[in-house]
Amino acid sequence: MAINIIEGGVCAAEGFVAGSVLAGIKKGRTKNDLSLIYTKTKAACAAVYTTNKVKGAPLTVTKEHISDGYAHAVICNSGNANTCNANGIDIAKQTCKLVAKKLKIAAKDVVVASTGVIGQPMSIEPIENAIPALVASLNANGSAAAAEGIMTTDTALKEVAVSFEIGGVTCKMGGIAKGSGMIHPNMATMLVFITTDCSISPEMLGKALSGDVKNTFNMVSVDGDTSTNDMVTVLANGKAGNKEITSRGKDFNEFMKALNTITVNLCKKIAADGEGATKMLECVVSGAKDEANAKIIAKSVICSSLVKAAMFGADANWGRILCAIGYSGADVDVSKVGVSFISGKGEIPVCSNGAGVEFSEDFAKEILSESEITIKIKLGDGVGAAVAWGCDLTYDYVKINGDYRT
Amino acid sequence: MAINIIEGGVCAAEGFVAGSVLAGIKKGRTKNDLSLIYTKTKAACAAVYTTNKVKGAPLTVTKEHISDGYAHAVICNSGNANTCNANGIDIAKQTCKLVAKKLKIAAKDVVVASTGVIGQPMSIEPIENAIPALVASLNANGSAAAAEGIMTTDTALKEVAVSFEIGGVTCKMGGIAKGSGMIHPNMATMLVFITTDCSISPEMLGKALSGDVKNTFNMVSVDGDTSTNDMVTVLANGKAGNKEITSRGKDFNEFMKALNTITVNLCKKIAADGEGATKMLECVVSGAKDEANAKIIAKSVICSSLVKAAMFGADANWGRILCAIGYSGADVDVSKVGVSFISGKGEIPVCSNGAGVEFSEDFAKEILSESEITIKIKLGDGVGAAVAWGCDLTYDYVKINGDYRT
Repeated sequence: MAINIIEGGVCAAEGFVAGSVLAGIKKGRTKNDLSLIYTKTKAACAAVYTTNKVKGAPLTVTKEHISDGYAHAVICNSGNANTCNANGIDIAKQTCKLVAKKLKIAAKDVVVASTGVIGQPMSIEPIENAIPALVASLNANGSAAAAEGIMTTDTALKEVAVSFEIGGVTCKMGGIAKGSGMIHPNMATMLVFITTDCSISPEMLGKALSGDVKNTFNMVSVDGDTSTNDMVTVLANGKAGNKEITSRGKDFNEFMKALNTITVNLCKKIAADGEGATKMLECVVSGAKDEANAKIIAKSVICSSLVKAAMFGADANWGRILCAIGYSGADVDVSKVGVSFISGKGEIPVCSNGAGVEFSEDFAKEILSESEITIKIKLGDGVGAAVAWGCDLTYDYVKINGDYRT
Repeated sequence: MAINIIEGGVCAAEGFVAGSVLAGIKKGRTKNDLSLIYTKTKAACAAVYTTNKVKGAPLTVTKEHISDGYAHAVICNSGNANTCNANGIDIAKQTCKLVAKKLKIAAKDVVVASTGVIGQPMSIEPIENAIPALVASLNANGSAAAAEGIMTTDTALKEVAVSFEIGGVTCKMGGIAKGSGMIHPNMATMLVFITTDCSISPEMLGKALSGDVKNTFNMVSVDGDTSTNDMVTVLANGKAGNKEITSRGKDFNEFMKALNTITVNLCKKIAADGEGATKMLECVVSGAKDEANAKIIAKSVICSSLVKAAMFGADANWGRILCAIGYSGADVDVSKVGVSFISGKGEIPVCSNGAGVEFSEDFAKEILSESEITIKIKLGDGVGAAVAWGCDLTYDYVKINGDYRT
């Protein structure tokens, strides 16, 4: 069944509205910093969270709130991670209470998230003051506003939506994401909010999400740092009217395909907008002993500072790719490795059977000067395959992170 | 017993001579690129090697050559790693043969090493032509020349020597190192050549070296990339005349102390001269559940791109340190973590019991503007302790690695 990219982001699906305001959580911010997504019809809800032992207070509160499998709203602030704060849980709970009261829903039906600096004192006042305007900002074209409100060092809005069919009924799904820094594939990463009007049980929604992130958000790395606050949430309000998906099967598979279209799209956007990035890197591994080994290799290459810096310089330094394969810990026969670089300009093989092949440095430079580069790695060990996404390492990454707080 | 820092590097120990020449292995290089260390008296020899599965051909040849526990000479070229080359083993063996012939020793008594770009064709001619001049360059003050010949993107010579006493006999030990990039603590890292006139059996020398590197060279990270060519070698020619160390005990402990003085000194030099680095970072962890957990935490912090970039910007962004502790995988109670920054300007606590404490941003800035920073982490979980060394992440790291080959 066809999956079509459509407009509307998190408001593409029937019954979802969104909006944002500038609450002034971090001084000097001019972009909106408080976003809200709302569905009047209660939605099945699933989430995955960072594996970092240092966890933002909002994650703990969200986990508790969606333990019954349902939610009405997602509220997210940028400018402060609400992590390593003595009163973090209290702030997160108050945030939910305040917005719930205004929306006339239960506080436990609110998903709460925060992103920004860790360990900074956070006050409820700016949020409290902003709630009326925030709720007033909700509208059916509010996805972009919501996407803006969760940005930190992101330079581009990240939203996408698709339409798809479940049992002859057209459904829609959309998502927004915040990425940029502190991104590393160690379970759920970054902040992603996905909405759909497809009808699916909380249990199957949870299975769909956790099944998908293994191959999508967990395969993205910007800088090897796994954030304390990352989560991916999906809300499914059933407004499309399809027969509820309650088990595996054809409908569930269609749903998974739609979800995967959304998540891969957002993965690429997050990677492309990695802090300071000038290039999106995709590492495609095939021929590994198994999928696990393919993933280890793809991640190792995408995470290598030296590979990332070489890509920034459009330098076909494939030795660094072999090096990263070698130290990845994967079970691999390095004497069978083949490497080529691909972009819109074409493909150039640079290494075969673990050794260099002659190639045109000029053509390699031309290929690597594009903004989307695929590093294709072929192994001779089996049928395991994997894809990972990342970005180049640039002066601007250092600039952005050399003085982020002040 | 006192261990004193002395002059002389790898020539400090009795009977060792060294030198280097410019062989022209990589076009455009103006520094010497081929180094030799030689002892007329055959020396006990031990080495540790990179764990990267992609291994430089010289490592394979060296391993074979020193399998009997002895060596006469170390030859090392920069400008080409001799890795992922079809004829790599042949080049490495020929190099040994050529220098052995000129020195009138057996080829199997030569340790060979290479550093530089991976996967570039390498020819024996420049080395062959340079051997007479290389052997002629050997002299008792040649340590600095040898240290220069192994530099790649290093900006500073790395050498050190000490005198120490074994059973009333004065012994000397010295070392040279090449560091800078592709450095990550995954067993032996970087190139380090150590010489001593202490008498010690090959077996005990091996035990001393492998025991030491676990807490020294394996705790240094510049960029998280484990090189293909790293090794640490020690040659002990026994010229000091002490009673040969053949077992554990007082003499062995004294030897370990001297070795540790050399290796810690070189670790700090390698970290301080990490590619693009403006600051040496030391992460001192105490109170961990055990040593293994302390090491995991120290390494995670020292490897974090975000911590490294914050240190470059003299930004006391301790939340990133907690974040790196949290995702390290260590068994740790994050609610008990304390963090302070130390430099020549003083110490400033920034986090206690996992939450921020009030501190003067001005004083923190002053402390973090120094060139040697200690990140002190206190946990409340036990008595495990560890130290790791690294450096800040700077514009120049990107510059150096964005176009290394050309």
